[in-house]
Amino acid sequence: MNGEPLPHRVRVRISPRPARSYDVAIGVGGPASVAEWLYNNYDGWRLAIVAEDRTSEIASLILGSAKERGLAGAVFRFGGGEERKTRTQKKEIENEMLASGYGRDTVVIAAGGGVTCDLAGFLAATYYRGVPWVAYPTTLLAMVDAAIGGKVAVNTPHGKNLIGAYHHPEWVRCDPSHLSTLPEREIRSGLAEVAKAALLESEVRVARLRELAPSILSGERAALEEIIEAAIRTKVEVVTQDDREEDYRQVLNLGHTIGHAIESASGFELRHGEAMSIGIALETRLAVAAGFAPTALIRQVEALLEDLGVPISLPEGLDPQSVHKRLQHDKKVREGRVRFSLLESPGKPHLGPEGWAVPVEDSLVRGVLGLNRQPVE
Amino acid sequence: MNGEPLPHRVRVRISPRPARSYDVAIGVGGPASVAEWLYNNYDGWRLAIVAEDRTSEIASLILGSAKERGLAGAVFRFGGGEERKTRTQKKEIENEMLASGYGRDTVVIAAGGGVTCDLAGFLAATYYRGVPWVAYPTTLLAMVDAAIGGKVAVNTPHGKNLIGAYHHPEWVRCDPSHLSTLPEREIRSGLAEVAKAALLESEVRVARLRELAPSILSGERAALEEIIEAAIRTKVEVVTQDDREEDYRQVLNLGHTIGHAIESASGFELRHGEAMSIGIALETRLAVAAGFAPTALIRQVEALLEDLGVPISLPEGLDPQSVHKRLQHDKKVREGRVRFSLLESPGKPHLGPEGWAVPVEDSLVRGVLGLNRQPVE
Repeated sequence: MNGEPLPHRVRVRISPRPARSYDVAIGVGGPASVAEWLYNNYDGWRLAIVAEDRTSEIASLILGSAKERGLAGAVFRFGGGEERKTRTQKKEIENEMLASGYGRDTVVIAAGGGVTCDLAGFLAATYYRGVPWVAYPTTLLAMVDAAIGGKVAVNTPHGKNLIGAYHHPEWVRCDPSHLSTLPEREIRSGLAEVAKAALLESEVRVARLRELAPSILSGERAALEEIIEAAIRTKVEVVTQDDREEDYRQVLNLGHTIGHAIESASGFELRHGEAMSIGIALETRLAVAAGFAPTALIRQVEALLEDLGVPISLPEGLDPQSVHKRLQHDKKVREGRVRFSLLESPGKPHLGPEGWAVPVEDSLVRGVLGLNRQPVE
Repeated sequence: MNGEPLPHRVRVRISPRPARSYDVAIGVGGPASVAEWLYNNYDGWRLAIVAEDRTSEIASLILGSAKERGLAGAVFRFGGGEERKTRTQKKEIENEMLASGYGRDTVVIAAGGGVTCDLAGFLAATYYRGVPWVAYPTTLLAMVDAAIGGKVAVNTPHGKNLIGAYHHPEWVRCDPSHLSTLPEREIRSGLAEVAKAALLESEVRVARLRELAPSILSGERAALEEIIEAAIRTKVEVVTQDDREEDYRQVLNLGHTIGHAIESASGFELRHGEAMSIGIALETRLAVAAGFAPTALIRQVEALLEDLGVPISLPEGLDPQSVHKRLQHDKKVREGRVRFSLLESPGKPHLGPEGWAVPVEDSLVRGVLGLNRQPVE
């Protein structure tokens, strides 16, 4: 610059990372099966099993089973809940582990719901600059969502999942028998994600899911296993094509853009899955309004969601204006227009000229929120 | 297990990461040059320039120069010092950035010494699950060490650098004119790392470094540029061959195993570089004692370190017993034997049957610490 001598230059080449793979296993016998897998793959390592209070019994089963095989480790408990998925909670568990001498030969096992998988996975991502982890999701939502895809994070006062990493687990083990101990509302909370996966997959999956709906809602294990596996396969197919969310992975945001705004506007009164379910229904209306999908898609999507017993419209008392305001702060806003991942038909996400997240005119967004009769601020 | 049905399995394939590269540029005109680089590569992004109090003027120069080019951003200051390289400090800067609306279109610039590069690099690694960063090291030690290699981390009460990530910067810019404003002890602190690089490189580099020593110590810019570039080249060669520390990168630990124990035993009274210099000298004695190197290497290494004005033996009042005790807690202990990266001769690190970090009998370690005349605990 300005006639000064050119700087010397040293080029640093970062070697490519080879492809790798891991398995998601679905079936009963989870705790013993995790212990066996750890014995086969991490003998001599120390197990740090991170669990919420309400899943600490499951964690103890895993630990007991691992100890029978001669492995050493401990359970690290925390209160659970979105409000504890924080940097401070992560630090407290890290300090407990460090005080107990857990080093780089640690393997972290996340035994709990989405909060535990996100928190423990992120903890594993930065502990000694990264140690391996195994996801043992115990809720339907965590099985089909949080445990898959390698996205781990904690919340901040300024938003959810803003501090985190991409850190894939070495193994994921889903045991549907844990779901029978969950309250029904908790199962329902996972069903929006299951519905989303079916909508991204095909007409056939949507039909099959409607067919299974009664068995699912009565907690039949075979039905649960089938839908868990199907939803995971769909997410895995998407993630495998794009594991850094650069483009195609955005189709997984179906329903989530409006859904997150609803969840936040409800002050987290609505469960994640309920908010996403409403989000899927409203974004389907948006796809139709924008001309990407036929009107019939609305009825098809709503019928699926209704069969699964999840909501399709904003609850009384939730101000659509406040949902709209939160949408304006979405991470995906570009030049004032919120971008959405929309569906043309089951199995066919919409690809616009700007990619899989399509900017939509605000008037259409206001329309599906029922705001067009109100004066614009 | 136990006759139960085999679980269903879904395989997740993680796509390979392609090779990439970045440049380290060395020369005067740093602040304007960074602004220019950001303008060329991150126009439209928001700059978060993280700086210690004592480097905040440099940070302001960068910001001013960037603003002249139409870029937007701010300086995020913190106190600096190893004691502030913490999870809490990281969180505070993150919160400031989040409160100011910095999103995934943020590029972090670390403008300061090793503490700033480590902290800001780690912050960049987890902010919105990873944003790009540029290293602008302002101390000799940071230029030749912290800024190169992608290892970023913070300290914990249980040890240094225990929570962190591998996150390479997009660019590194070293301006030796900042070094003239540093106290001489600070320059010396970087010289152990420069000596280590020369020892790993070749006899020729060692001879050249001794030749340049007087010019370096009087702060001549051309001499500084030459040794900075040479040390960086050596580190880059090593890191390029192994960017996840799986094996060969361990040669960079030369002097650091004993050095870290000394640094910790001194209660951080000794500067990092001083402790490493003594570590290099003592580990050379260890290489000779273990039969890997000829006795003449001791004299050769000590002459180099002395020319550079850095210490070669434990200071009065530092208890070798406490150094020895800390060695037993080294991350690299396996089956009671501490593992060291040792030199056979300049340019020739020792490769043992177990790799580049070689387990050494404790009696030899006690020997070089002058402990063999004392009764074993």
